Amino acid sequence: MEPKVDSSNLSPCTKKMVKQKKIKPSKELPSGFEDRKEKELLIRDFVIFNIKEIMIKYGFQYLETPSFEYTDSIGKFLPDKDRPGEGIFSFKDEAKWLSLRYDLTAPLARYIAKNFNEIQKPFKRYQLGTVWRNEKPGPGRYREFLQFDADYVGTKNLQTDAELCILISEILDRCGLEKADYTVKISSRKFTENLFKKLKIKSKEQSSAILRALDKIDRLGWSEAQKLLGEGRKDKSGDYTKGANLKKDQIKIIEDTLSSKTPNTEDVLEIIKIFEAYNFKNYKFDPSVIRGLEYYTGPIFEVNLNFGVKNLKGQIVKFGSIGGGGRYDNLVSNFGNFDCPATGISIGLDRLVYALIQKKDFKIKTSRPVVICVFDENNTKKYVDILNKLRSSNISSEIYPGEGKLKKQMEYANKIESPCVIFYGDDEIKKSEVKLRNLKTGEESSVKIENLVNEIKKFI
Amino acid sequence: MEPKVDSSNLSPCTKKMVKQKKIKPSKELPSGFEDRKEKELLIRDFVIFNIKEIMIKYGFQYLETPSFEYTDSIGKFLPDKDRPGEGIFSFKDEAKWLSLRYDLTAPLARYIAKNFNEIQKPFKRYQLGTVWRNEKPGPGRYREFLQFDADYVGTKNLQTDAELCILISEILDRCGLEKADYTVKISSRKFTENLFKKLKIKSKEQSSAILRALDKIDRLGWSEAQKLLGEGRKDKSGDYTKGANLKKDQIKIIEDTLSSKTPNTEDVLEIIKIFEAYNFKNYKFDPSVIRGLEYYTGPIFEVNLNFGVKNLKGQIVKFGSIGGGGRYDNLVSNFGNFDCPATGISIGLDRLVYALIQKKDFKIKTSRPVVICVFDENNTKKYVDILNKLRSSNISSEIYPGEGKLKKQMEYANKIESPCVIFYGDDEIKKSEVKLRNLKTGEESSVKIENLVNEIKKFI
Repeated sequence: MEPKVDSSNLSPCTKKMVKQKKIKPSKELPSGFEDRKEKELLIRDFVIFNIKEIMIKYGFQYLETPSFEYTDSIGKFLPDKDRPGEGIFSFKDEAKWLSLRYDLTAPLARYIAKNFNEIQKPFKRYQLGTVWRNEKPGPGRYREFLQFDADYVGTKNLQTDAELCILISEILDRCGLEKADYTVKISSRKFTENLFKKLKIKSKEQSSAILRALDKIDRLGWSEAQKLLGEGRKDKSGDYTKGANLKKDQIKIIEDTLSSKTPNTEDVLEIIKIFEAYNFKNYKFDPSVIRGLEYYTGPIFEVNLNFGVKNLKGQIVKFGSIGGGGRYDNLVSNFGNFDCPATGISIGLDRLVYALIQKKDFKIKTSRPVVICVFDENNTKKYVDILNKLRSSNISSEIYPGEGKLKKQMEYANKIESPCVIFYGDDEIKKSEVKLRNLKTGEESSVKIENLVNEIKKFI
Repeated sequence: MEPKVDSSNLSPCTKKMVKQKKIKPSKELPSGFEDRKEKELLIRDFVIFNIKEIMIKYGFQYLETPSFEYTDSIGKFLPDKDRPGEGIFSFKDEAKWLSLRYDLTAPLARYIAKNFNEIQKPFKRYQLGTVWRNEKPGPGRYREFLQFDADYVGTKNLQTDAELCILISEILDRCGLEKADYTVKISSRKFTENLFKKLKIKSKEQSSAILRALDKIDRLGWSEAQKLLGEGRKDKSGDYTKGANLKKDQIKIIEDTLSSKTPNTEDVLEIIKIFEAYNFKNYKFDPSVIRGLEYYTGPIFEVNLNFGVKNLKGQIVKFGSIGGGGRYDNLVSNFGNFDCPATGISIGLDRLVYALIQKKDFKIKTSRPVVICVFDENNTKKYVDILNKLRSSNISSEIYPGEGKLKKQMEYANKIESPCVIFYGDDEIKKSEVKLRNLKTGEESSVKIENLVNEIKKFI
């Protein structure tokens, strides 16, 4: 059966070329997407295992919403206006539009609204799931992320906000980071609201533009962000972004306010008091923390890694944010007459795993299989006997799965970094023993079958 | 900050209504998508844990390809022609089309082609991941599935096909199924190729139409499938599907051939011989196994659960297939001049979990937290001391996270099925003890703080 290329989306000319096999389908991935290999996945599993244990300890429930939602259900709270009306992957379905979730918070709000009467509040849930952002393709701009979220729904108690920061810290500790490796930064939307009052900003458009500009200070630096607060800014590619149109004295007020080192909003002061009760010290008040998503209403958090990592050019740069969150007291009420304050925090797991790999020398056991060599296919039953013995002792093992002769089998075993190969030819079968070759040392020994498992366990 | 509905995809009239808050966003999910709750997720975790252990034992590597691929990379091998050119979710991106993967095999072929020279063959990988199918919405037609796949790449050795069937069987055993609960059915595309020769079918269109019709025997029964082999069939909704246009005597040949109980293709005979060497008995040769995907070239497998489950109408029906696979020796060569035979198998994990829940009484420990009641917010530090004691002993616990008084706190603790609540008021604080109320029995006792962990461990 000949494989077929889906041609429904191709031009007639391309269709013809595909049919004539003049062009081959692409072997490449679209930009912003990646294949992930064993080492990264095993470290990710280790992180996820820790998260789940901690979530149980903190009394959170495990929940999973689907990848797709109605577009109007999750709205669009992304700050990035690079691609107006985009930023999310949307899809026309019968009469309505569907979108892939761009975070796990907006779908949670939908879930709460849908099940409002059945859910006992406060409701504490965590979720692990992929989110998608339809970013402008470019180096280092990923469009698929694995995210962990924990949220408290149906409570204004600021202890919940404090506890989110503390649990994130416990997760990072458990993954092997030191206290000096990370900081939880906190601020509040009340802080920027006060700022807007001082600046006499009333229009929603202008305050949004200011927030977007402030959110970019970390990435662009103050002098470039300043242009976005003023008339506008042309980026390296020549694209022009209209600014928030503030006057020079207004921008000066912002600069002074952001340099403030002491919290002056009630919510942040209260959270810091709770941190003290928990003896939690690894935080910092930082008014330049903005968090782009538009639904935040109160305290906001950002988790930053303080150590340096190599960027794509090999330069050492500060790693920066691996997540954050905040309070969103009005998001659920978007769906109707629900009074449902809530607060939550997210971690980008791919970024965290990347940072952990750079920081720590993980001893990950990848368990390459012991290879039982094939001399004669008529002896399959004999090889299976050995195989069953190993596998029933939980030793990773296989009968050579290819088609080559012994030389090729040895080549294969070496390439996959098998710890040892087993020779079980006619001579050995007669003597009820195998020849065992340790591929690290090259040593070869004859081993009675009843001792095989113990022998192998010595060096795997 | 007022939440905003993304209006870029709405009509001007709808936009205006959203702005005026006359319509609320939907609280519902698009059809074919589901929220998943804790019990299901914990059983799924248990299944995945077993799968990973077995995959290591069998010597497979863990790999993950992304959700999106270029549409032309993964082609479209789905049998369902209900929605021509669809069946998959596709998005236009700059110049090219992207699609969400509809299986894990086509992306694996792309991965192999992309990394052909670096990969040591035979290459054994497993993957766990969501796949999407843009099915016509309807009850019980899901559009998002979690799938497990294991594949052998770069070998024609039929032992690999046999071992896939055996490892699936081991996974099902480990998940708690009995041998009688499931059967691995095997057949081969060679079988239908021989059939086509007998029927003198030469056109690709006609043979595809026959395969699609045969694939539907299980769902529709022979008499309805027969119509699809002949002129065509009108379904209940009135939709008409054109048939394969076979004559009556040709259809009779098919009927006779399908009722054959003895395998007559070399590949199946060889696999059965290997099953014997493994002492694997839980299989059945069944020529009516077709497997819809068009890329199969040799042996094909299907895993069926034999026990009954309740359908949406409460009727007991046979559960049927939870997965399958087969050999696809030409799929990688689609990308260029690669000689790369391969074989693989998939399990639909959501379906498997659903079946397990129906079949077995899982004792899943959901660990609801012990609730420490709040009498006085000035005592937070005291409550935290208790909390830290419990959590450092890995006891799921929390300080009441809401805002209500004691009555509301008790209501909450009962509703979330907390095992017990802790009262730590001024009197108790003075005496260095807590009052502990067991919420199952209603018993209340005073417990010294140093004994608290041991007391609680007695009944959680």
